[in-house]
Amino acid sequence: MTTETFDIETHAKTYQDKGPADILRLAYGNFDNIAISFSGAEDVVLIDIASRITSSLKVFSLDTGRLHSETYRFLEQVREHYNIELEVLSPDAAQLEAFVRDKGLYSFYKDGHKECCGVRKIAPLRRKLQTLDAWVTGQRKDQSPTRANVSVMETDSAFSTPGRALYKFNPLSNWTSKQVWGYIRANDVPFNELHGRGYTSIGCEPCTRPVLPNQHEREGRWWWEEETLKECGLHAGNLAPGS
Amino acid sequence: MTTETFDIETHAKTYQDKGPADILRLAYGNFDNIAISFSGAEDVVLIDIASRITSSLKVFSLDTGRLHSETYRFLEQVREHYNIELEVLSPDAAQLEAFVRDKGLYSFYKDGHKECCGVRKIAPLRRKLQTLDAWVTGQRKDQSPTRANVSVMETDSAFSTPGRALYKFNPLSNWTSKQVWGYIRANDVPFNELHGRGYTSIGCEPCTRPVLPNQHEREGRWWWEEETLKECGLHAGNLAPGS
Amino acid sequence: MTTETFDIETHAKTYQDKGPADILRLAYGNFDNIAISFSGAEDVVLIDIASRITSSLKVFSLDTGRLHSETYRFLEQVREHYNIELEVLSPDAAQLEAFVRDKGLYSFYKDGHKECCGVRKIAPLRRKLQTLDAWVTGQRKDQSPTRANVSVMETDSAFSTPGRALYKFNPLSNWTSKQVWGYIRANDVPFNELHGRGYTSIGCEPCTRPVLPNQHEREGRWWWEEETLKECGLHAGNLAPGS
Amino acid sequence: MTTETFDIETHAKTYQDKGPADILRLAYGNFDNIAISFSGAEDVVLIDIASRITSSLKVFSLDTGRLHSETYRFLEQVREHYNIELEVLSPDAAQLEAFVRDKGLYSFYKDGHKECCGVRKIAPLRRKLQTLDAWVTGQRKDQSPTRANVSVMETDSAFSTPGRALYKFNPLSNWTSKQVWGYIRANDVPFNELHGRGYTSIGCEPCTRPVLPNQHEREGRWWWEEETLKECGLHAGNLAPGS
Repeated sequence: MTTETFDIETHAKTYQDKGPADILRLAYGNFDNIAISFSGAEDVVLIDIASRITSSLKVFSLDTGRLHSETYRFLEQVREHYNIELEVLSPDAAQLEAFVRDKGLYSFYKDGHKECCGVRKIAPLRRKLQTLDAWVTGQRKDQSPTRANVSVMETDSAFSTPGRALYKFNPLSNWTSKQVWGYIRANDVPFNELHGRGYTSIGCEPCTRPVLPNQHEREGRWWWEEETLKECGLHAGNLAPGS
Repeated sequence: MTTETFDIETHAKTYQDKGPADILRLAYGNFDNIAISFSGAEDVVLIDIASRITSSLKVFSLDTGRLHSETYRFLEQVREHYNIELEVLSPDAAQLEAFVRDKGLYSFYKDGHKECCGVRKIAPLRRKLQTLDAWVTGQRKDQSPTRANVSVMETDSAFSTPGRALYKFNPLSNWTSKQVWGYIRANDVPFNELHGRGYTSIGCEPCTRPVLPNQHEREGRWWWEEETLKECGLHAGNLAPGS
Repeated sequence: MTTETFDIETHAKTYQDKGPADILRLAYGNFDNIAISFSGAEDVVLIDIASRITSSLKVFSLDTGRLHSETYRFLEQVREHYNIELEVLSPDAAQLEAFVRDKGLYSFYKDGHKECCGVRKIAPLRRKLQTLDAWVTGQRKDQSPTRANVSVMETDSAFSTPGRALYKFNPLSNWTSKQVWGYIRANDVPFNELHGRGYTSIGCEPCTRPVLPNQHEREGRWWWEEETLKECGLHAGNLAPGS
Repeated sequence: MTTETFDIETHAKTYQDKGPADILRLAYGNFDNIAISFSGAEDVVLIDIASRITSSLKVFSLDTGRLHSETYRFLEQVREHYNIELEVLSPDAAQLEAFVRDKGLYSFYKDGHKECCGVRKIAPLRRKLQTLDAWVTGQRKDQSPTRANVSVMETDSAFSTPGRALYKFNPLSNWTSKQVWGYIRANDVPFNELHGRGYTSIGCEPCTRPVLPNQHEREGRWWWEEETLKECGLHAGNLAPGS
C-alpha cells in the first residue's frame, strides 16, 4: 500500500487509544517502505515491539557527530542485539564545514539550536525521508508542551512535499514515561547507559544534561532556551505556526 | 518543656495533615534540647525550613567514613550556607577496627547492611540521642514500603529507654518527593550534586547507586536486599516486630 | 615561495637540531599557503609558538565525528583563545554512511583502525592537503617507534602527488614530551582537560584511553594493535614499505 | 631479634644499594613484630614482594575516613588477592568529632593539612607503632624533595620513644617510579584504579588530584602548600628541624 490509498485520518481516529503494538501492526501491515527513526534513547522500545511484528525492520539514526560516546555504544549494542541493519546518517561535509568555520562548534548556546540541528539532523533526515512512504517516531504526549497533541499517526506536515505525502506513526504517543520504562525493565530491553546517570531525554552531548529528581525530562534539553520552542525540527509540525 | 509534659499522641493527631513549617514550629516551641538529623541528601529542606523558625538550630550528621566525596562537600556547604554548627559524628575506632579486621570493608554485600550500619551509624546515633529530648528526621511516607505509616511525630520506639522517652518529629512525613524538590528549587536550597547525576536517595557510597528514570528512589539503596527490610536502623521502629 | 624553489633537503640538514620557533620561522618565511594540522592535544604548542611568528595563522582539525566531548570543547577554546579561524574538516557523508552500514560503529576493534581512519581522517585530510604547499604537524621522535626518525622537515611521501610536491614541517620533532609540557605550563597554554585525567596522547574517543604512571603515551592508542603499526595514515610515510 | 640487638646503622650501609627483596629478607629474617604500612597506592609492590618472602605478613592501612571509594575497593582487593589480614585503623571518634565541630570538614585548605593528618592519620599510626618493633614503608627518594635522602633502613626519629627504638625499613628507597610500575605490570600486581585516571601519588580524596603528563607525582598532593613541607607526618623525620 502507499500513502495514496491509506486513509490516515480515519485510522488515526480508530487507533487514537490503542497501544504501540496495535499501531505498529497497522503500520507494518500497510507499508513496506517504512522505517523507524531511532534516537538512541528510550525509543528503543519501538524497535523491541516492532521486531516482534515484522522481520524486515528498517531503522535509521541521525549521527550528528556530537552524540555522547555512550550513545554510539548503545547504537551498536542495539544493532547487534536485534540483528538489524542500522542506517546511521551523517551531515553533509561541505555544509557542516562552512557552518563550523563561520560560527564555531558551540554557536547554539548563543543563537539557539535551530541552525546546528538544521545542518546536523534535519538535512540528513530530509534526505532520508524523501525515500520513504512512512516513518515511525518515539514521540510521546507527556514529553513536552510541544508534544501534548501528538496523534498516534498523521500526515507529516513538516516533511511531506507538494506532490508526495509522508506519513508519520507515533506509536508511543499515549504512553507515559513510566509505561516506557516499565516495558524496558519488564522485557530486559537494552538501554543507553546515560539513563543510569540521571539522563532522561537524550540528544546531542552539548545540548543534553541530567535532570534532578522530579524535574521534567525536557529540562535536560536546550535548557538555555524557552520551553515552548524545544523541538529540533524533526517534529517541527508540532510547533504552532509563527513560532 | 520536656518529653514528660508534651502530649505527643494528641499532637500527632492534631498535626497529622499539617505541613513541615507548622510541625517544626510546634517542635521548636516546646523543646530546646532538640536536633535535626541531616543525612546530606534532600532532607536539607528540614534545615532550610527550621532556620526560618529558630535561631538556635542544632544539626548532626552521621559520618560513617564511607560517604561520597560529594556528600562531604555538601555537608560543608550546608554548614557554611546556613551558618550552623554541624556536629559530625564518627564511629568508635575500636569497634570499627574490630569489625573491619574480622569481615573486611564490604561484608554488607554478603550478609546484609545491618551489621555495618550498626557500627558506623546506629552506635554513634544512639550515643547522640541519649543527650536529646527530641530529634527531627526527614522520613517521608512515599519513600518506601517501610515508611508508609510514618507519623508526623511519635515516641521513638527504637531509641527511647525505659526511664526516658525520646520524641521523634517527621515534618516531611506527608510530603512527596515532588513537593520536596519543588521546595528546593523554588527556594534555591543548596543540594547534593549527586542528585544531578541520577541519585535520588543518598546514603553510603558502596550502598547507594543512581536510579533509572521512573525507578523508585529506594531501588538505589541496598539493592541486593529485600525491599521490606531496607531500614538502616535509624528508623528501626518502622520495621514490623520480627523482621 | 613554492615547493619548487625551497630546497627542503638542505634546510632539513641545517635545521636538524634547531628548535620549534626557528623551524616555524623558516616555514612561515617561505610559505604562504601553509597550515597547521591541530589534533586537539598537546600539539597546541605549535599554535602558541606560530602565533608569535605570524599573524596569518591557518589551522585545521580533522573532526572524525568520534572525538571526545572534551576535545570539541578544547578546539573551541583554542579557536577563541588565539582568535584564529579554525577549519574543522568532516568526513564525506556518503562514504561514511556506506562504511557504517556495512561494518557498524566499532569495526576497528575487529579488523584494525586503518579503514575507519581512512574514511574519517585521511580522506578529508587528503582533500585539504591538495590545497596546500606545506603543512605543519606535531609529530615527535619520542612519541613512538614509528616516529623515531621523523625529520624536522621533509617532502611528504604520503600526500605529495606526481605533479606536485607537498612539504611537511615537524617543528617538535626533537622535543620530548617533557619539553612540550614544560612549555605548556611555563606559558599558560590552554590544554585539553583530558590531559588532567590520565590521557597523554589523544585521538578518537573509542581509540584512546588513559595510560598508567610511567606507561608510554602510545599505549593509550589502538592498544589492541601492534606497536609498530600505530599510525592513522596522517603520517603513513613513517611506516616502512610493506607495512 | 629485637631493636636492641639489630645494628641498623651497619646494615643500612651494607644494604644501601640493595633491592627491595634483599632488604625485606633482612627485615623479616630479624623481626617478627614487623608490619607493612600500606597506603592503598603503588606501595602494593611491598606486599607483593614480602608475600614471597614470609607467610606471616602483617599489613595495616590508615583509614582516615576520607579516602577515595576506589581506594577502599582496592584495599579490599589486596586483602583478598594476597589473603592477608589487613588491619584498617580509624581515628579516635571523640578527637575527630571535636576537630570537625571546631573547624569543619575542609580546614586543611585554609591552614594546612597538618592538623587534619594529625587526627586522622598520625594519632592512629602512633597507637599502632607503639605495638611494633619495626615497620615497612613505601617511601622512595624520587618521590619528593623531602624524601631525597631516605635511607633503606633507619631508626624512626619521629616515632621512637625515649625508652624504645622503632626501626623503619624503606625497601623501595632506591627504586624509581618507573621501576615500581615496571614491577607492577610485569607481575600483574593489582593496582588502585585511580592510577588509570591520571593519579600517581594517592592520599585522601580532598587532598589528592591527578597530575598532568610529565608533572611530578607530588604535585598532585596538597597542591596549595609548599613543596618542601609535603609530609603528612608519617615520615616527619624527613623534614629538617624547624620546618
